[in-house]
Amino acid sequence: MTDEATAFVPGHVTGFFSAHPHENPARAGSRGAGVALSHGVRVTVRRPDEGRETTDGPPRTTLNGESVPMPPVDGVRKRLGVPDAAVEAETPLPLGSGFGVSGAVALGTAYAANAVFGRRLSENGLVSAAHCAEVEAGTGLGDVVGQARGGLPIRLEPGAPEHGAMDGVPARPRVEYLTFGEVSTEAVLSGDTRSLTRAGERSLADLRDRPTPARLVALSRRFAREAELTTDRVESAVADVRAAGGDAAMAMLGDTVFAFGTALSDAGYDPAVCEVHPTGSGLVSE
Amino acid sequence: MTDEATAFVPGHVTGFFSAHPHENPARAGSRGAGVALSHGVRVTVRRPDEGRETTDGPPRTTLNGESVPMPPVDGVRKRLGVPDAAVEAETPLPLGSGFGVSGAVALGTAYAANAVFGRRLSENGLVSAAHCAEVEAGTGLGDVVGQARGGLPIRLEPGAPEHGAMDGVPARPRVEYLTFGEVSTEAVLSGDTRSLTRAGERSLADLRDRPTPARLVALSRRFAREAELTTDRVESAVADVRAAGGDAAMAMLGDTVFAFGTALSDAGYDPAVCEVHPTGSGLVSE
Repeated sequence: MTDEATAFVPGHVTGFFSAHPHENPARAGSRGAGVALSHGVRVTVRRPDEGRETTDGPPRTTLNGESVPMPPVDGVRKRLGVPDAAVEAETPLPLGSGFGVSGAVALGTAYAANAVFGRRLSENGLVSAAHCAEVEAGTGLGDVVGQARGGLPIRLEPGAPEHGAMDGVPARPRVEYLTFGEVSTEAVLSGDTRSLTRAGERSLADLRDRPTPARLVALSRRFAREAELTTDRVESAVADVRAAGGDAAMAMLGDTVFAFGTALSDAGYDPAVCEVHPTGSGLVSE
Repeated sequence: MTDEATAFVPGHVTGFFSAHPHENPARAGSRGAGVALSHGVRVTVRRPDEGRETTDGPPRTTLNGESVPMPPVDGVRKRLGVPDAAVEAETPLPLGSGFGVSGAVALGTAYAANAVFGRRLSENGLVSAAHCAEVEAGTGLGDVVGQARGGLPIRLEPGAPEHGAMDGVPARPRVEYLTFGEVSTEAVLSGDTRSLTRAGERSLADLRDRPTPARLVALSRRFAREAELTTDRVESAVADVRAAGGDAAMAMLGDTVFAFGTALSDAGYDPAVCEVHPTGSGLVSE
């Protein structure tokens, strides 16, 4: 046990997915594929200040210095039995734009709180706690298990590690992305996801047949069109990239376009640039 | 496709294990736990030289510049359908001393040959090819899946990714190790493994109950004693470390002792020092 610990969790862009709700959150989740990013979230957990009264209100969760409500983080606190854990998260990624920031803060909280409070969970146990908290909050279905794995994660079977199954595309391309704004994950996931799920299952079968980065982007682009999720600004950026000879797709779920190599730069955009994060989540200091 | 590609695969020390033979190599394997090391193997695969005749003999596998027979690498060539792939491996780790070098060369060959010859396998497919080749060669039962995962891997269920199941201890301690010589993996695995397997299953249950680095070392030490695998030199070094207030255990299977933190140094030894490799195997250039 220690007074504070810090975990790093990569950002995660989902390219395509199918939704698989279940009353047991450990069995609920998504199939699909995405990209774990070297841009991610650093999460520090501290013991509560001495003398702090529980009547002072709920424990603080801050993101880049601002106090924000984060239901998945509250869910992790509850599952780990650490109601007073103070959580401080720092990230260059925007919230609500398809980078899995809420899942990352939840997973980082699980890793760091496990170290600070000596909770003795295994890595699967930590991932499961964060996955279930994210599912129950309705803020995501598959980012957490992708962020835990790293690389270019393929979600073969939905759910937490004890139920799900993962694979990966064996490559580590340079990543470019550009964010125009937010899309509500809750609004899409709470609507009718049947046609989305059919499109996602098709893309998954085609990616498994030929698991390469170029194919991941092409199938993600097809999915967004088939599922009718593409925003006007993403559609316009993808058209520009295609006209310049490259390929790009939309991040699920955000008004965000992503591409590999220099596809967005080549089309005249000024994107954020990062790498694939091959490692996945973990403690960086304790 | 490209003319050459290089993969890095971490070394892997198994602390304890149970053996689970099966006629299907993808279902054969081991349960147990170990450590993925930042000291590992760089494997470069090249297309055969133009004009090389197949009558020139089998393709070359070199380790640190010396031509060596490596049946698991031949097995990967066969499974990937790349009989002419030239394989060049470089490592600071000794062969036959419990670091999973043969599995690492096999897995690195799979990753790099997949890129060079455009074989379009997923990461699970590459790990499965190397795992099966290693099992068929009789040189190991669980190093490959541990090396693919990285961290402090726990093998919950034996076998290649499509059948096995993994977990991990959520920590990244400093690692010290010292090698006195070789132990034949083939000789141990081809003998009666029943009492070894009982001891390994006990250690696994106890580690899952409390998955910490200290417990991993203590249970590995207990396993080696119960399975009657401890060599005289390892026993003497472990006794010295314990007398100095630390803990250490034997690498399965080699005349090698490993420890976390500064346990071997504190006992007056001059060990090799590395880190846990959290990432696992992957391409580093193509």
